[in-house]
Amino acid sequence: MEIQSENACFGGVQGVYTHASKATGTDMTFGLFQPAEAQDGPVPVLWYLSGLTCTHENAMTKAGAQAWAANEGVALIFPDTSPRGEGVADDDAYDLGQGAGFYVNATENPWAPHFNMWDYVTEDLPELVFNEFALDADRQGITGHSMGGHGALTIAMTMPERFRSVSAFSPICNPTASDWGRKQLGAYLGGDNTKWVAHDASLLMKNNGFEGPMLIDTGTKDQFIDLLKPEALANAIASRRQQAIFRMQPGYDHSYFFVSSFMEDHVSFHAEALYA
Amino acid sequence: MEIQSENACFGGVQGVYTHASKATGTDMTFGLFQPAEAQDGPVPVLWYLSGLTCTHENAMTKAGAQAWAANEGVALIFPDTSPRGEGVADDDAYDLGQGAGFYVNATENPWAPHFNMWDYVTEDLPELVFNEFALDADRQGITGHSMGGHGALTIAMTMPERFRSVSAFSPICNPTASDWGRKQLGAYLGGDNTKWVAHDASLLMKNNGFEGPMLIDTGTKDQFIDLLKPEALANAIASRRQQAIFRMQPGYDHSYFFVSSFMEDHVSFHAEALYA
Repeated sequence: MEIQSENACFGGVQGVYTHASKATGTDMTFGLFQPAEAQDGPVPVLWYLSGLTCTHENAMTKAGAQAWAANEGVALIFPDTSPRGEGVADDDAYDLGQGAGFYVNATENPWAPHFNMWDYVTEDLPELVFNEFALDADRQGITGHSMGGHGALTIAMTMPERFRSVSAFSPICNPTASDWGRKQLGAYLGGDNTKWVAHDASLLMKNNGFEGPMLIDTGTKDQFIDLLKPEALANAIASRRQQAIFRMQPGYDHSYFFVSSFMEDHVSFHAEALYA
Repeated sequence: MEIQSENACFGGVQGVYTHASKATGTDMTFGLFQPAEAQDGPVPVLWYLSGLTCTHENAMTKAGAQAWAANEGVALIFPDTSPRGEGVADDDAYDLGQGAGFYVNATENPWAPHFNMWDYVTEDLPELVFNEFALDADRQGITGHSMGGHGALTIAMTMPERFRSVSAFSPICNPTASDWGRKQLGAYLGGDNTKWVAHDASLLMKNNGFEGPMLIDTGTKDQFIDLLKPEALANAIASRRQQAIFRMQPGYDHSYFFVSSFMEDHVSFHAEALYA
């Protein structure tokens, strides 16, 4: 693991690190915020998965999460959204290939060799960070924005024993029925729709649900709301009688101005579960 | 004035606007955060002047200031740092020309026609924003980072009747004695050093001081600290018996991780003066 940068930040350290990933077969870069409390022993962790076109850097610099994480004594992990580099397949579209890993393990070429973001986020990166840093693997929460909200919800509902709490900002809720989903799941997983089910938060809510608390925020003026389909997840939550807070925030759009506006709520929400 | 974007943000609106500036003879773009209270009438204003290489956008997206400004009911203005565009002079160096206006009115060519950032920030932009938005010209504070800290301090000490409070993050404190200053003041104002005095915060502190409260934060690990020369300003503050809070923050560097870490303090500091 190579240290790219470490900056003092809200009494803790905002670092950027690069490591060789087994899952992707590439070097991967991630951000990690450690609050001051990490100097005294393992702290709880909140994973933040980013959206289409993002790297590890966007949320790290624009979501304003460190302020609240420092208040709560929680670490933040900001993974990248895909493998990158010259030997890695890509597509001209912003929503496929590099920057658009969709948090799945690709089975189809040209994506299969490197696009294993599910394994990266659930196996590879956890193994590294829990070995290298004072982080408490028994206290993990997960959140994300847009494609990253999709990732957070699908991973949490697949690994409920790992995550005490899950939240999402404007998540892609029903990718098997959306142009933000059908294109990517088809490219990465192939045409057999039955393989897509494990990566659709609304279907997972119907089939699995989640043991712990759940918080979802979406803006009523989100310019991508027809692609996000929050109505599908809301329906599934209510139908399942799932514990959840589902909020439509008046006037807000899809931007980081929206994410940052509600970040305090999300970090507090997770901290309550992680320190319970 | 043209609206580039308006995003809901912490209950208010983060906007970006473009207008034709008389001072620079170019189109200029700025950011403005209006808290929810602006819907009910004029709110106090905090100006944020940015540093070298920045546009209106850096602080608007990375400083985390809107959270605290929303709490306090204060508007934020984020001007650009120079005129820009094809007909505007530039230099290959990052610290001269576009992105490096230094908050002076250039008298020397090729800069003189457009590089009038002092007039832009003190005349042109105020005239526009106090006409167009629900902002209270009788309640203004000013802050900034690095070159923008220099701008905030020099403008406040020149116009103490306008600003109730001034603060700065890692300001350039003594540009007449620094490579961050001598180069730019020489290029924009010419070789006559007596014309530089009006743009040196340490000399202005000696000669003018400031009527109201002043807050200065600099990181002990600032990688540019030899160029900033906080010791010159600290000396001048103490020698003058100026009301001030001058802080060296242990371990922090020059980045926006530093700025965001102490933004709550700065916004609260100004709000106390603006709501007094």
